[in-house]
Amino acid sequence: MTVNRIYNFNAGPAALPLSVLEEIQESFLNFKGSGMSITEISHRSKWFDDVINDAVIRTKRLLDLGADFQVLFIQGGASLQFCMIPMNLLAAGRSADYVDTGTWSTNAIKEAQIQGKRIKVAASSADRNYSYIPKNVQFSDDAVYVHFTSNNTIEGTQWVKFPNTNGIALIADMSSDIMSRPFDPEPFGLIYAGAQKNIGPAGVCLVIIRDDMLKLIPENLPTMLTYKTYVAKNSLFNTPPCFAIYTVQLVLTWLEETIGGLKKMEAINQQKARLLYDFLDSTDFFRTTAALDSRSVMNVTFRLPGEDLEKRLVQEALKNGMGGLKGHSSVGGCRASIYNATTLEAISALIDFMKHFESKNG
Amino acid sequence: MTVNRIYNFNAGPAALPLSVLEEIQESFLNFKGSGMSITEISHRSKWFDDVINDAVIRTKRLLDLGADFQVLFIQGGASLQFCMIPMNLLAAGRSADYVDTGTWSTNAIKEAQIQGKRIKVAASSADRNYSYIPKNVQFSDDAVYVHFTSNNTIEGTQWVKFPNTNGIALIADMSSDIMSRPFDPEPFGLIYAGAQKNIGPAGVCLVIIRDDMLKLIPENLPTMLTYKTYVAKNSLFNTPPCFAIYTVQLVLTWLEETIGGLKKMEAINQQKARLLYDFLDSTDFFRTTAALDSRSVMNVTFRLPGEDLEKRLVQEALKNGMGGLKGHSSVGGCRASIYNATTLEAISALIDFMKHFESKNG
Repeated sequence: MTVNRIYNFNAGPAALPLSVLEEIQESFLNFKGSGMSITEISHRSKWFDDVINDAVIRTKRLLDLGADFQVLFIQGGASLQFCMIPMNLLAAGRSADYVDTGTWSTNAIKEAQIQGKRIKVAASSADRNYSYIPKNVQFSDDAVYVHFTSNNTIEGTQWVKFPNTNGIALIADMSSDIMSRPFDPEPFGLIYAGAQKNIGPAGVCLVIIRDDMLKLIPENLPTMLTYKTYVAKNSLFNTPPCFAIYTVQLVLTWLEETIGGLKKMEAINQQKARLLYDFLDSTDFFRTTAALDSRSVMNVTFRLPGEDLEKRLVQEALKNGMGGLKGHSSVGGCRASIYNATTLEAISALIDFMKHFESKNG
Repeated sequence: MTVNRIYNFNAGPAALPLSVLEEIQESFLNFKGSGMSITEISHRSKWFDDVINDAVIRTKRLLDLGADFQVLFIQGGASLQFCMIPMNLLAAGRSADYVDTGTWSTNAIKEAQIQGKRIKVAASSADRNYSYIPKNVQFSDDAVYVHFTSNNTIEGTQWVKFPNTNGIALIADMSSDIMSRPFDPEPFGLIYAGAQKNIGPAGVCLVIIRDDMLKLIPENLPTMLTYKTYVAKNSLFNTPPCFAIYTVQLVLTWLEETIGGLKKMEAINQQKARLLYDFLDSTDFFRTTAALDSRSVMNVTFRLPGEDLEKRLVQEALKNGMGGLKGHSSVGGCRASIYNATTLEAISALIDFMKHFESKNG
């Protein structure tokens, strides 16, 4: 490993591909012969146009988006999208359905309600601590959209098959599994993803919106809070988060040119998750928390026999060069986030360490 | 100059101190021995707490802020602040005064009006192409706040002495001159500054709010759009733009430890501006555009005898290692932005080049 880097299992901000970090580092004082850092070039320059346009094109290609999809980069994270989505798409008197599968779904619901929007929780897995993904959900015929969280970072669950809405536009928070697998984008009216898990650093949110959704947006919204601004200006109405978009562009390039696209990325991710779950299932010392059919390929949540042991595992892992294994403070336990940039080597090292930990403490 | 860097006169994103860029580069694969990049560490870690807390403390110290000021980091740039300020501080039936001194003032006014807020333009310099700063402005007794733009990046004007409001809270967009000079913060209810000119990269806006202003904020705002969220959570309600805040922290450290504070920074900035204006005043070939008593110390705007010559100057400057001299597209002409990170050496090189250019074309 270069310069004593650790195996990084952080939930987000999370590990980035080493080759991407090295490229940023190498060109940091002189971007593409401009004589300036990427942080110093104008967002109106040819240099930055090339960056953002390439990021848009690669997003469209990787996700196989049709010409009716717009790719936007917006600040404020997924949390601002919780607010912008109902603000833009849910007119007075109209209603939307939400599926509540955990902390971030709940927050999305709350931000619609704060604005006095009419929403219905069509299904929830709160009854069993959000440990599963609801099945065969029935949606309201008059819903403008159906909102769900494709992967639940905190609870370690993931939609294997997306909900069937019979034509109602799907909206998904894909912050923690965007670009981890291919999927059919056609049923989606909007997809959003904070970059800091699978595709970049914190500070930018990827938003993909289908053209027909734009017709729902009222005229009188603040300029920075309407999707129309970002569509009309290619996300360059005001100064965008240049460094974050640049890093996303490099990660997307890595996905296409080093990994070979989302089918290949999915195979690697499946292999990583299988290795880890197989190990966890092979012992009674570790206990996974997600229902078998709802396990996340990105965030593997597990418990040990007692909180003291969990704390000790996190600490000893860090001493052994493995970071970020503490579960979210709201649920406790342990969690290994194994996003795209987490290598097979990291998974093997983690399993070896856990075996050793069990043999000492089991 | 290291690795063929240019003299960067960009208006924003703009030059950063070379030592800051070098520090980022050096530690980019392993931040403070964490074994992770600054882009990969958790925003809930001790490492990032140290970064953001240090940025807050240095901001308070550099600007001599009292204990009643809160320092926040918010995404969306100054443009989102144009919207958030009236949304948070201007209740129905209340009114605020705005001074219109150019493009960004006008945008701030527009965003208040879009929300149906009652505002009055107390003074404007639109009558002479925003080439001056209005004097002795009278404000409405019942104004909740008075909004002004301390430095007009596009028009090259700057408030030398801030408006006297007889106790009405001042609100200033200081995006292009924050930390360039000391000032008395007491009359200010709120100060905001997109980082990408004087204190960092694009992707974060520094917002300073006085405690009494928080009482004006209604309860029912979306979580990401109320200042209360950022105050309650030390700007860490959701994942913040970690890399941008880290870079700001390094620039503030440079301001304190290398430059020696804002009084020293101001002296250097005054010297840089004086050299450049003195040269421009010494020749009829170049003509400055701002009124003498309103000249910006940050953005020096000037014209040549004809647009062809202006275009040629920008091009030849770039060939000679000087970038960013094109005026804003809305006003034309030339502009040298000489923010904190622009060195005296860069100013001398620019003057030498301009002398040579005049001798060839004058």
